[in-house]
This record gives sequence, C-alpha cells and structure tokens, in this order.
Amino acid sequence: MNTTANKHTKREKILDHGVQMLMTQGYHGTGLQQILDEVKIPKGSFYNYFKSKEQFAADAIVHYIEPFIIRLQTHIDNPQLNGLQALQRYYQELIHEISASDYTGGCLLGNLMGEIGETSELCRSALKNTVDRDRNLQKQALFQAQSEGIVRCDYTAEAMADLLLNGWQGALLRAKIEHSPKALHACIDSLLNDFFRHP
Amino acid sequence: MNTTANKHTKREKILDHGVQMLMTQGYHGTGLQQILDEVKIPKGSFYNYFKSKEQFAADAIVHYIEPFIIRLQTHIDNPQLNGLQALQRYYQELIHEISASDYTGGCLLGNLMGEIGETSELCRSALKNTVDRDRNLQKQALFQAQSEGIVRCDYTAEAMADLLLNGWQGALLRAKIEHSPKALHACIDSLLNDFFRHP
Repeated sequence: MNTTANKHTKREKILDHGVQMLMTQGYHGTGLQQILDEVKIPKGSFYNYFKSKEQFAADAIVHYIEPFIIRLQTHIDNPQLNGLQALQRYYQELIHEISASDYTGGCLLGNLMGEIGETSELCRSALKNTVDRDRNLQKQALFQAQSEGIVRCDYTAEAMADLLLNGWQGALLRAKIEHSPKALHACIDSLLNDFFRHP
Repeated sequence: MNTTANKHTKREKILDHGVQMLMTQGYHGTGLQQILDEVKIPKGSFYNYFKSKEQFAADAIVHYIEPFIIRLQTHIDNPQLNGLQALQRYYQELIHEISASDYTGGCLLGNLMGEIGETSELCRSALKNTVDRDRNLQKQALFQAQSEGIVRCDYTAEAMADLLLNGWQGALLRAKIEHSPKALHACIDSLLNDFFRHP
C-alpha cells in the first residue's frame, strides 16, 4: 500500500471511530486521545489528517451521511419500488437498526445540531450542507411519488422532505430518552402513510 | 431575608444562569466555575445546592420548562381561544422570540436529549418526565379542540401532541443551523393548520 493510500485508510479509520464517539458522547465529551488510542495513532500525527478537532468533527459529519445516502439511493433506483415505497423501506430499515442498538447514538447530525449548531461555524456549515444533501435525496423520492400519483401535489416535494427529515430528527431524540421505537413509527406512519398521501 | 429563602434565591440564580449556558454550550461544554463566577458563589458552596453537576443539569431541565408550562396553560385558560388557537398563539410567540434571539440556544430539552440522553440516567429520567409534562399539556389543548369539533378524532389527542412536540424539536434543530424560522413555521402550519384539522 503506498503512503497516500495508507494515509487515506488511517483517516477513514479515525473518522469511523470518531463518528461512534461523537454520536454517543457528543462533541465536547469526545477526547481526541481516546480516539487515537483506539486507532493506535500518536497524538502528534492527528494533525496530519485534520487541522483541528473542529475540522475533524466537520469531516466526521460529511463521512457519517455517506452510507445513508447510498442506501436510500439504492431503494430509489430499485425499479420494483415506487418513490413512497423507497422511503418506507429506508425508514423501516433504520427503525429496525435503531431498535436493535437499543436507541444508543441516535443521529450524529441531530445531536451535533443541538450541541454545537451555533458555536462552531465550520460544523454548522458542514451540518447544513449534509442535511441539505440528505433532504434533496428524499425530495427526489417524493417528487417521483408525486409523478406516480401516490403523493399529494399541493405541497412541494421539497417541503414534504423537510417535514419528514425534521420530524424524524425530533422522533429520534424522543426514542433515545424513551428507549422505544414508538415516536419513530408514529412519525413515519403519520407522514408517509397518511399526511403525504394523495387524497 | 431568612437563610432558607436566601438559599432558594441563590439556587434559582444558579439555575437561571445554568440554563442559559447549558443551552448554548451543551452539558460537557458548560463549566461549573463559569456559572459560579457569574452568580458570585464560591465553588465549595455549589454542593450546598446540588449533589453533582449531573444533578444540577437534571434540576435545570425541570427549572427550564416551568415558564413554558405557565404560558401555554394561560392560553388554554383564556376563554376567548379554542384549544387549537391556544396552541397556535403559544407557538407563534415562541417562533417570534426564537427569531428575535437569532436562533441561539434552541430548546434545552432537545439539545440535552441529543447530547446526554443516553449517558446520564438521571438526566434521561428528568428529560422524560419534563417532556411528558409538556406533552400532556399540549394533549389537553388538542383534546379540547377535538371536543370543539375543530381537530380530527381519528388520532388521539396524545398521539397528535407527540407528533407536534417531536416535529417542533426537529424543526428547532434545523432553524438553528439555517438561522431561519422556515422549519418552525412549516412544522406548525402543516400540523396545526392542516394535518390535525377536522376534515
């Protein structure tokens, strides 16, 4: 493995561990030393990968969303699912996984919006761009469902994608303190199976 | 002022400042020393008021919700407003205030659910009880609106209060990173003025 590829792999490894720690312990509760100990990298070389802890968190935000985007895109690209079914499948999988993990972590985006959404401009900007990217993919699925005649057209696909994303973030917080999937099911059922439906 | 009353006042003062700091800096980002400096109390005597930082945060959660409960109860008790108008008035006031404060802070409950909802059992329990108290008052307003024939009856008042509370929490996170009231208006308008309405 050449040096550039090795550096890339180590960076990914730091981000993978970092995402887990940021999710469960928050930004201020995450110590760089703990991450570096786990990935076996001396503290001095952390700055070969990231300019600062803040930059590391901003990069972790971008890194975190990638598998969610790939997963939803796969469902959208599945010709056997309509736009609404793609979203239903996606959220049912997430609810199943969150329940299986006993509601630990929640969503990195939601947790960091709450904790540092206003104190770090770098992270705020990374959060905004990442949330917009996620919203735009959900908008694509809802737009498709509108053209398929399944979803109402008196709201724009973007407005509904925003309601869905924001409602889901709130439901995730609730699931975390209740150790229950009730809020998650209620959010998805009420929006996707009722409110957004074509009358 | 007698000693008990003085102790009560100082405790309230610590909680008032503490809520502000916890809201903007998070639990881990809030240093006790900073609060004590502001309220001019020596560090040693902090433990006369609270057993631990964790107990202080749990008490701050309970302290935080009080004015919101009083405000919503006042609107519910106003005979000139129906149940739905009471909620509309309440949320419009909140949106106005959040916009005026340039979206700093958000909601202490939402921020702490994300940051420490799973790491502190004491705070998780305080958050759950406080959120339930808030939800139950919103449920009361929605139940009234159902009996007034304004709100749909195929969802329970409790289910709608949960959707409203959770949707609002998600919208607050979004408002914070967008510096915009758009998500807040969208949440309240779509739920109170559309989805919850009697057909």
